[in-house]
Amino acid sequence: MKAEILSIGNEILCGNIIDTNANYIIKKLKEINLTVQHVSAVGDHEKELIAQLQEACQRSQIIITTGGLGPTEDDITFQSIAKAFGLKLVKYPEAEEHLIKTLTGVSIDIAPSNLKQTFLPEGSHCIINPYGTAPALILEKDDRVIVALPGVPLEMKNLLSEQIMPFLQSKFPNLKQMQSRIIRTSGLPESALNDKIKDFINSHLDLNIGIYATPEDIQIQLNALANTIEEAEVILDGATEQLKDLLGDYIFGYEQDSLEKVIGNLLREKKLTLAVAESCTGGMLGEAITSIAGSSDYFKGGIISYSGEIKEKLLGVPHDILQEFGEVSEPVARAMAEGVCKKCNSDIGIGITGIAGPEGGSPEKPVGLVYIALADSNQTTVQKYQLRRDRQTIRLRSTRRALNMLRLYLINL
Amino acid sequence: MKAEILSIGNEILCGNIIDTNANYIIKKLKEINLTVQHVSAVGDHEKELIAQLQEACQRSQIIITTGGLGPTEDDITFQSIAKAFGLKLVKYPEAEEHLIKTLTGVSIDIAPSNLKQTFLPEGSHCIINPYGTAPALILEKDDRVIVALPGVPLEMKNLLSEQIMPFLQSKFPNLKQMQSRIIRTSGLPESALNDKIKDFINSHLDLNIGIYATPEDIQIQLNALANTIEEAEVILDGATEQLKDLLGDYIFGYEQDSLEKVIGNLLREKKLTLAVAESCTGGMLGEAITSIAGSSDYFKGGIISYSGEIKEKLLGVPHDILQEFGEVSEPVARAMAEGVCKKCNSDIGIGITGIAGPEGGSPEKPVGLVYIALADSNQTTVQKYQLRRDRQTIRLRSTRRALNMLRLYLINL
Repeated sequence: MKAEILSIGNEILCGNIIDTNANYIIKKLKEINLTVQHVSAVGDHEKELIAQLQEACQRSQIIITTGGLGPTEDDITFQSIAKAFGLKLVKYPEAEEHLIKTLTGVSIDIAPSNLKQTFLPEGSHCIINPYGTAPALILEKDDRVIVALPGVPLEMKNLLSEQIMPFLQSKFPNLKQMQSRIIRTSGLPESALNDKIKDFINSHLDLNIGIYATPEDIQIQLNALANTIEEAEVILDGATEQLKDLLGDYIFGYEQDSLEKVIGNLLREKKLTLAVAESCTGGMLGEAITSIAGSSDYFKGGIISYSGEIKEKLLGVPHDILQEFGEVSEPVARAMAEGVCKKCNSDIGIGITGIAGPEGGSPEKPVGLVYIALADSNQTTVQKYQLRRDRQTIRLRSTRRALNMLRLYLINL
Repeated sequence: MKAEILSIGNEILCGNIIDTNANYIIKKLKEINLTVQHVSAVGDHEKELIAQLQEACQRSQIIITTGGLGPTEDDITFQSIAKAFGLKLVKYPEAEEHLIKTLTGVSIDIAPSNLKQTFLPEGSHCIINPYGTAPALILEKDDRVIVALPGVPLEMKNLLSEQIMPFLQSKFPNLKQMQSRIIRTSGLPESALNDKIKDFINSHLDLNIGIYATPEDIQIQLNALANTIEEAEVILDGATEQLKDLLGDYIFGYEQDSLEKVIGNLLREKKLTLAVAESCTGGMLGEAITSIAGSSDYFKGGIISYSGEIKEKLLGVPHDILQEFGEVSEPVARAMAEGVCKKCNSDIGIGITGIAGPEGGSPEKPVGLVYIALADSNQTTVQKYQLRRDRQTIRLRSTRRALNMLRLYLINL
């Protein structure tokens, strides 16, 4: 069984609003394992709307429309549904009664255009809308279910939850159960990750698997479909174990985890404190760490050493090291991490120095060259990266690399 | 002439992401007066994708797809376009060259899946993508123009602006000319801004005017449609002058200006240096300032004083002031700004201390209380704010307030 969403309204096609209704409906239907296979948006044009409704009925069993139920000239959803399926529009007394009650309550005269909202395609099930004047409808026609909801997000959401979802569940009691899981990874590029789990993907016909790269991490989304929630969870648990074997420490978390949250938990658990010394990231690492509520438990602070002078004066990076190796170098990253550890009296110090560009590169030290150092009281490790793309991406990736380096350090302690 | 947008990817139909690309493309096409009559989203299923491409060609002259150009198994846009129009996939050497160049630069082995991206439908115009590995394409076929763009928003936006828009304008020279201008403001809430320019909006029937609040600023977008670019520019110039009279210093810039860029230019022009001391923002202000290339000309660095210990030790905030007034207080903000100025040897110092929440508030000092101080060698000014919403928004707004405070200080010097 497939569902489809049709968003109706010039405001979407004019670019005035982003259609967030479709996304909301997709998520709600997913809860009862109804897959949306198609989403479209059309303007307030009767001919196009009729064509779309007819096409949708050829593709999908359940069609949910949003928008076009209001009182104005351009609200034509009911009349278009009627024409698409060769039905008459008939007055629904309960809709008129609700309209009169609602509008009388706010002492507004009932405009003739309002009355339009009380005429629905013959045979429809009229859904009274306590959140507005326009009723919604459910129309069952030739094994198809057409649901027309208002476009105002609050009204749409309430009617969907309170009236449409219970209707769909009672009409289709055999819907399967879908359960989803997100596996979050760091440290492997998307294509390498894909190659590592290709066989896993191809062998799992019981799962729908997607890989999504975001600026923060690369996620594997697993969707399992089964007769019961428990069965779906068993499939997900098995797949998660397989992915753990395949990906090991590249997996840093699940669901809503983030690197900053994971390192926060690890630092708190191990009772360790952290400080950061940032050059090219200019505060981005500190910002990420302190985005977590309660990070003051383990984060002491940091030094943004955006000039050689500050590296020397506030971090104690020796003048001759800066002179000999340059600000972007392995020994300077090392001295930054060690320096910030000492100055902030923390257990762990991280130092980042690099060339974010677009200017400032050279053949020996190109844009994207970044050194990240991690120091504790015993030793200091430095990693060298050659990152790609624009200034902001290089800074963002440096920050994520530093967080992942810290995570790997903490789990191997 | 009608255009249509086809968003491709399971991530949209799974509800993982809201499709914001379509909205962006609609707005860009509107600039050259091209109307989008249909938007649809389909999953990574070849059969459905082919059917949609063919239907789209029956409805619209210009079809723009986003997504499905990556290296993974589920990226099938090129092969589906080829099948939809009965074309062979052929290797484009320039695409392969770009891929090798891009991946070699970072010493990553080229996975076999990457090479898929270099095969395009025969007859396509290959658009090299400097922002990623996947090329885009333009295919002209039977009076239809098919454009396939990546789904990653940054890549899509850059390729659309830099390559696709000029192509469409030269191919269809009789399109009306839309010219847009963005006026950026800071310091006035959206509703107050709206009230100030209400009469201006109602008097300008020659303009389409939108007000958009982003986390960074509030923008006024002016769109003028005319027969020539020159005519449209004259309308925009007049409107801009009127807005300058109405809004004065609330306007900080135009088009792609940002507060961090504007303060960078002012600091460079006035040959002044800056340092920051951050508590609740945890590095966010430093990150914003250093997001501008060349910011090392005027930004010396900063201290993230996330604990009282660091405020005392590294910023020299007196112990008794911390004890008497607490970490979030006017005297501490003042001492932070003055301290960082001295420690970093800068002309100007900014100090931010506040309660970002969700924990840590009290009746006297509720969540959202933020003090921002600005010090130079002569004097220190402190502003107190009571900000609303969640932790990250409070941090973001503190950062923007600090940047705007610095801007107003610099233009009044």
